[in-house]
Amino acid sequence: MPLDSLIARLAQIVGEQHLLTRTEDMAPHLREWRDLYRGAALAVVKPGATQEVAAIMRLATAEHLPVVPQGGNTGLVGGQIPDTSGTMLVLSLQRLDRVREVDPLTDTMTVEAGVTLQRAQEAAEEAGRLFPLSLASEGSCTVGGNIATNAGGTAVIAYGNTRDLVLGLEVVLADGRVWNGLGKLRKDNTGYDLKNLFVGSEGTLGIVTAAVLKLFPRPRSRATAFCGLASPAAALDLLTLAKRRAGGAVTTFELMPRIGLDFVLRHAPGTRDPLAAAHRWYVLIELSSQLDGGIDDSLEAILGEAIEVGSVEDAALASSLEQRAAFWKLREALSEVQRHEGGSIKHDVSVPVAEVPAFLAEATAAVEAWMAGCRVVAFGHLGDGNIHYNVSQPVGADKAAFLARWDELNSLVHGIVARYAGSISAEHGIGRLKRHLLPEVKDPVALALMRDLKRTLDPDGILNPGAVL
Amino acid sequence: MPLDSLIARLAQIVGEQHLLTRTEDMAPHLREWRDLYRGAALAVVKPGATQEVAAIMRLATAEHLPVVPQGGNTGLVGGQIPDTSGTMLVLSLQRLDRVREVDPLTDTMTVEAGVTLQRAQEAAEEAGRLFPLSLASEGSCTVGGNIATNAGGTAVIAYGNTRDLVLGLEVVLADGRVWNGLGKLRKDNTGYDLKNLFVGSEGTLGIVTAAVLKLFPRPRSRATAFCGLASPAAALDLLTLAKRRAGGAVTTFELMPRIGLDFVLRHAPGTRDPLAAAHRWYVLIELSSQLDGGIDDSLEAILGEAIEVGSVEDAALASSLEQRAAFWKLREALSEVQRHEGGSIKHDVSVPVAEVPAFLAEATAAVEAWMAGCRVVAFGHLGDGNIHYNVSQPVGADKAAFLARWDELNSLVHGIVARYAGSISAEHGIGRLKRHLLPEVKDPVALALMRDLKRTLDPDGILNPGAVL
Repeated sequence: MPLDSLIARLAQIVGEQHLLTRTEDMAPHLREWRDLYRGAALAVVKPGATQEVAAIMRLATAEHLPVVPQGGNTGLVGGQIPDTSGTMLVLSLQRLDRVREVDPLTDTMTVEAGVTLQRAQEAAEEAGRLFPLSLASEGSCTVGGNIATNAGGTAVIAYGNTRDLVLGLEVVLADGRVWNGLGKLRKDNTGYDLKNLFVGSEGTLGIVTAAVLKLFPRPRSRATAFCGLASPAAALDLLTLAKRRAGGAVTTFELMPRIGLDFVLRHAPGTRDPLAAAHRWYVLIELSSQLDGGIDDSLEAILGEAIEVGSVEDAALASSLEQRAAFWKLREALSEVQRHEGGSIKHDVSVPVAEVPAFLAEATAAVEAWMAGCRVVAFGHLGDGNIHYNVSQPVGADKAAFLARWDELNSLVHGIVARYAGSISAEHGIGRLKRHLLPEVKDPVALALMRDLKRTLDPDGILNPGAVL
Repeated sequence: MPLDSLIARLAQIVGEQHLLTRTEDMAPHLREWRDLYRGAALAVVKPGATQEVAAIMRLATAEHLPVVPQGGNTGLVGGQIPDTSGTMLVLSLQRLDRVREVDPLTDTMTVEAGVTLQRAQEAAEEAGRLFPLSLASEGSCTVGGNIATNAGGTAVIAYGNTRDLVLGLEVVLADGRVWNGLGKLRKDNTGYDLKNLFVGSEGTLGIVTAAVLKLFPRPRSRATAFCGLASPAAALDLLTLAKRRAGGAVTTFELMPRIGLDFVLRHAPGTRDPLAAAHRWYVLIELSSQLDGGIDDSLEAILGEAIEVGSVEDAALASSLEQRAAFWKLREALSEVQRHEGGSIKHDVSVPVAEVPAFLAEATAAVEAWMAGCRVVAFGHLGDGNIHYNVSQPVGADKAAFLARWDELNSLVHGIVARYAGSISAEHGIGRLKRHLLPEVKDPVALALMRDLKRTLDPDGILNPGAVL
């Protein structure tokens, strides 16, 4: 089909106003927010209903047209940006933005892919429930993107990854068939688990158009503390103690190093160190409970015991919502402030929880030997074994020269991750950024199975080509 | 290859003493425990290591030999029993029975497929941890079988199905390749989720030989109550209240009808009704907590409020471990005692939690209209929407004549389940028992995808043929 006929057909499906072909209109969809990826596209199409997505995919299959699904365009591995050939179609799910149903009795919510995470959280809250997924980009990322990337975030320790929060899916397949798997069942053993095949497949096996999400009771009380510790091993001791004493009530356990706190205090206005003395490491811990009271006492008892056995050096308990927000800001600002310290080479890795201290020691020794003066800023979700192992350039070094060694440092760190049977993408996915690394780190049988699955579900290779595989 | 050469090759792989070919030796592996299925086999082979399973599957692929994997032979849908042709090989995983590792710091345990569920629970307990999966057959069922069927049980409300308890798998594929996916990571977004493809696939996509399981802190306190209620709607009100007040601490919520309690009191020695008056429905509720105390108070407060608003008519709180055991026995004996009341036609169904009361009312009206005097014994995991909707024959009716109408009653009940967007196999699987029903109840696109996956992973159709698809 000639290009102008193809464009006309797409316009017929979605309406002319929802088909973007002018460079300036398409621009926001073709640039990744950190400017790491810029692509080109035949067009950006914005369907308003599942059946329009299906019609687009039928056309794409007939015309061998590669399609890149896109949510809020907040992804960190370039999976949502087409290549520069200009031959791909960007399919934005943003207009699929209805909350179809909230069912507080069954504790489920059915939302379309383009609903932002924040809107989903709010819809749950309006019904007196909690949708616990929480990430830095929640104001603009979409539920569809969260599902496509199996997003993690700060509540995984208690509620699991996105995968664990999805009960059912509606998916448009490569050839335009629609799988209606929007079940609200907690238990269903009638055949293979199709849902988890699509969750985390980054738009390469099908296009998620809607999902049934699990809701939870809203916690009635919370206790939050900011703790100073000597080492990651001490933090692991605190984690073990907290889980033994409070189990699933431990809803946050975030580790950060002194240098991270220094960065925050230096660059994030209005922040201050809650503790009198400096410590080498910090933990933000939060307990949540359905019970009316007693959670402060529980956290106090845990911290008391931890101080007694020496795993915690000092701790501040939040005594107000303002103080809680101030503690959280220290953790949340950390992602952003690193850019004020020059170039930063990033890793999103995980290792078995018990191995985090050994991994951190070994990786940091290796990185500091690799380049004198470079500054390791390793922080993140200790409770999940997930560390954002970032390395800031030496003070005064040339930023571009430092960043030019990105792959080299990645190899060094990922090599150590592999020795700990870890993952080189704990929560961000593979996308285009880490695709070339996959054959090195993945079990060859697993990789062969992934390729088989890709061929089975997308025989013509039109779904997000160049991402993942 | 001639049959005797094939047998000789199998004996070479596992050792002669681990290859059974005599009828009397094979018999325990060829008969389902309720005698619903009897099969025949070429041989029963008992490999002692993953590599032996791999060698058997390489041979099976070369010889187009159909293989039926078997764990503890406790399955309820005949998935573990070969057909009567005598051409299939039963592959028993029972000798793969090592607990390879318990890692209490990472909260994981690596066990082989033939480890019994009870042994797995004990290994966790020895390390001061909890492996929460709990089923009636736990003394003899195996972890491999639990994984193959995505087993449910009584702790799903708090800990999820088996699927949610598995972090990693080792799987032998149809052609003998071994996928080593025994990761201990809580977060790993490097590609497609292969694990969940095998969990619940009933041995039709691969043979699970080992797994990494999640461990949890052991609860430090428990509170248990047996409640009398007027209706399933009242039970749902109690569930909603309990979840709002206690969240994830609600670890048991089991519904049973008066007739179920009558059956238990009549046939299970040493049981007695904990409540003074009779009630139409009962709920066994348990809260568990890591906290040292206060859980009894929480349950008491919940029940007090429920009695005040009228959802609970009366309740007994267990004041000792003996009393707790007595309450649990009332629920646990229910599965077994039904056989003393003549024929029982079974359904393992689920509907959205909020729909359970409406479903029960509609199904029971229909069933009682279908046959005068038949006795509905509907009980189970209300918190998961999973009801064992069993129907006992009318008193004095002919058992065989009643059971002859099994399919007819199934159709009636499953038709109502379908109208509530429910599942005809909530936790037992499809196996051979419900295979013929699958095309009627499954979304056609889902069914087509399942067939595609089967062809991709088992192109010669040698893995558990006749089960599921």
